[in-house]
Amino acid sequence: MIKVNENYLKLQAGYLFPEIGRRIRAFKAENPKADIIRMGIGDVTEPLAPAVIEAMHKAVDEMADKETFRGYDDGGIGYEFLRQAVRDNDYKALDVDIELDEIFISDGAKSDTGNMQEIFGLDNVVAVTDPVYPVYVDTNVMAGRTAAAAENKYEGIVYLPCTAENNFVPDLPKQRVDMIYLCYPNNPTGAVATKQQLKVWVDYARANKSVLLFDSAYEAFISEPDIPHSIYQIEGAKEVAIEFRSFSKTAGFTGVRCAYCIVPKSLKAYKKDGTAAAVNPIWNRRHCTKFNGVSYITQRAAEAVYSKEGKKQIRQTIDIYMNNAKTIRESLTKFGYTVYGGVNAPYIWMKTPKGLSSWEFFDYLLSKANVVGTPGAGFGAAGEGYFRLTAFGQAENVRKAMERIKNIS
Amino acid sequence: MIKVNENYLKLQAGYLFPEIGRRIRAFKAENPKADIIRMGIGDVTEPLAPAVIEAMHKAVDEMADKETFRGYDDGGIGYEFLRQAVRDNDYKALDVDIELDEIFISDGAKSDTGNMQEIFGLDNVVAVTDPVYPVYVDTNVMAGRTAAAAENKYEGIVYLPCTAENNFVPDLPKQRVDMIYLCYPNNPTGAVATKQQLKVWVDYARANKSVLLFDSAYEAFISEPDIPHSIYQIEGAKEVAIEFRSFSKTAGFTGVRCAYCIVPKSLKAYKKDGTAAAVNPIWNRRHCTKFNGVSYITQRAAEAVYSKEGKKQIRQTIDIYMNNAKTIRESLTKFGYTVYGGVNAPYIWMKTPKGLSSWEFFDYLLSKANVVGTPGAGFGAAGEGYFRLTAFGQAENVRKAMERIKNIS
Repeated sequence: MIKVNENYLKLQAGYLFPEIGRRIRAFKAENPKADIIRMGIGDVTEPLAPAVIEAMHKAVDEMADKETFRGYDDGGIGYEFLRQAVRDNDYKALDVDIELDEIFISDGAKSDTGNMQEIFGLDNVVAVTDPVYPVYVDTNVMAGRTAAAAENKYEGIVYLPCTAENNFVPDLPKQRVDMIYLCYPNNPTGAVATKQQLKVWVDYARANKSVLLFDSAYEAFISEPDIPHSIYQIEGAKEVAIEFRSFSKTAGFTGVRCAYCIVPKSLKAYKKDGTAAAVNPIWNRRHCTKFNGVSYITQRAAEAVYSKEGKKQIRQTIDIYMNNAKTIRESLTKFGYTVYGGVNAPYIWMKTPKGLSSWEFFDYLLSKANVVGTPGAGFGAAGEGYFRLTAFGQAENVRKAMERIKNIS
Repeated sequence: MIKVNENYLKLQAGYLFPEIGRRIRAFKAENPKADIIRMGIGDVTEPLAPAVIEAMHKAVDEMADKETFRGYDDGGIGYEFLRQAVRDNDYKALDVDIELDEIFISDGAKSDTGNMQEIFGLDNVVAVTDPVYPVYVDTNVMAGRTAAAAENKYEGIVYLPCTAENNFVPDLPKQRVDMIYLCYPNNPTGAVATKQQLKVWVDYARANKSVLLFDSAYEAFISEPDIPHSIYQIEGAKEVAIEFRSFSKTAGFTGVRCAYCIVPKSLKAYKKDGTAAAVNPIWNRRHCTKFNGVSYITQRAAEAVYSKEGKKQIRQTIDIYMNNAKTIRESLTKFGYTVYGGVNAPYIWMKTPKGLSSWEFFDYLLSKANVVGTPGAGFGAAGEGYFRLTAFGQAENVRKAMERIKNIS
């Protein structure tokens, strides 16, 4: 008899975005003429950069010719042309040395952050910030590192609350933890961590032989000078940290699919008997056994993001989004709301007004202003009382949404 | 302390293709002028079909325009336009009813066949044919469904020998098994299974509440009229079978990345207490949590495979490969070798001559004829004494390779 993986049955049924979709549909059914502005899901809206478009057309033409046709990406970890571009532009430029075989090109940071836990034992204690990107939690539930859920938390996971009180950077846990998920610039709070704050975590991981799973998908949105762009700018991080990056938000690739992760060769995990095992070859084996590489056309598109023209064009698009963030931040502040983020990240994290719960505020904003955001509670228990707005929309919609919020404030 | 997933350490070090690469490099170092013809790895060589190229250019242009730009593929299971094309062309045409939400578009059959085991419990008994595509085995080792390996077999896996004696279709196992991987047309043997042969397995799975993981990646190469193109042509299969298909070999997409799997809603798995759980929503949850959809451009490319022009062009390319298969099959037979496959599959499976082991024959062929194939033992213990040649090369190289083999036979 085929047995199901019962860990999947522990997953809480109402995933965030489907529930949001359900409430929008119900509202639209009763108010068919409502002009709803969506600032909920973090998906980009601006077209791809011309340099990227040009590179893709060229790559498509190569696939039409026997002489230049490409089959499997040998080994599946990504073409060297792209890994070189990553190394030179994302790391050498920061004075960080990363070797080509420490870079793994993939189809998305969701895949990478979801899959990475697999190469570690089931008896590791997982820590996540709260609020958090649900993928870190759900994939550990699926793997069997938790018991059932109660009150928006899974037993067995250590939640590290991030609130206005600690500037959305968690304190060290009281209990020892092995796998620590950190995301800065942060989704959903829009907060950043300073070098000093990250050093606390790197030092903790070194002292406790823990691993940091550092999600840096929003790195391109950092605007302030002293904020670190990579965990590897912190001394010793290459011994304890895996870094995830994505082209999704940086270059509008949510529909193109490209990301990468860095698994340093100096990173070790341990057998039960205490023997060390290098993590890099284990991830390599995982990657090449369960994945067959990213589309050649997509890899050429990603390479073009690092061209001179590409860099300039990408920056212009990011500026559009960050101008939206500024509009949201300044408008809401003017209307009397308490607002965080939106300076080094495309997310604005606001306190719900008048003690409303985050879902109550969701319904209020939808019905009164026809604006959709994301209830903070959807990201975890400590997100209650907060609300996320994203800056990825069109500028005129953002202004219109702010006007409407003004009128109900 | 971060613990490693020790199951990964059970994996046998010498993966097949790296070892082949090592021997080729060693040979080339000593014989730098040797003109080596590669008929080892099953990678395509013909360019993409013009209809596919056209669709990709169009999709790239859509991504350049704000009005037609696409971000996330909503939900990640694939655009409806592609799932409709799959349903209508690959199933309705066979009189098989598949619903749109039973189709999951992915980046490759390697990913799907590797990931699917995850939603089933660790206490299921896995059966694979021997020889076998290594991904089925390795992913179950990684998950922890086996003990260590000994003599080319992992303890805990039930191997079903496929040899000339049973026409490369396995007999039912003596011991009860829960997860059964079948691949027809078969890689590596090139064999096919008739409806009667598949019915034996569907009936077994229904009687034992087992699940069939049916890999149909080479379906497009079937040339004989009575061979089934889908497991769902067998009565009752929708209760017990998941089917995997790929555009990789069908349409030359090894560098483009697109595949799909069918998870019927009538398929059930069971909790330890015997309660049934529908598998489709569980796979949906897995897919949408750890994967964020296939490139929009790739999905439009796959759609074009089903256009009138696309179908014709794809068929022409398959004919090129199948002509190669015919050349190989007929030449080797003429030279006195015993040869299987190559009629409904792009693989030729030959008996090694003069009692040579499959690696001995590999070395012999490389050094005497400068032709590379794949030793059968690399696919499992029952592959010893066999050798795989693929039909994916250029016609002139195939003819040249046959000429050289003739001269050493």
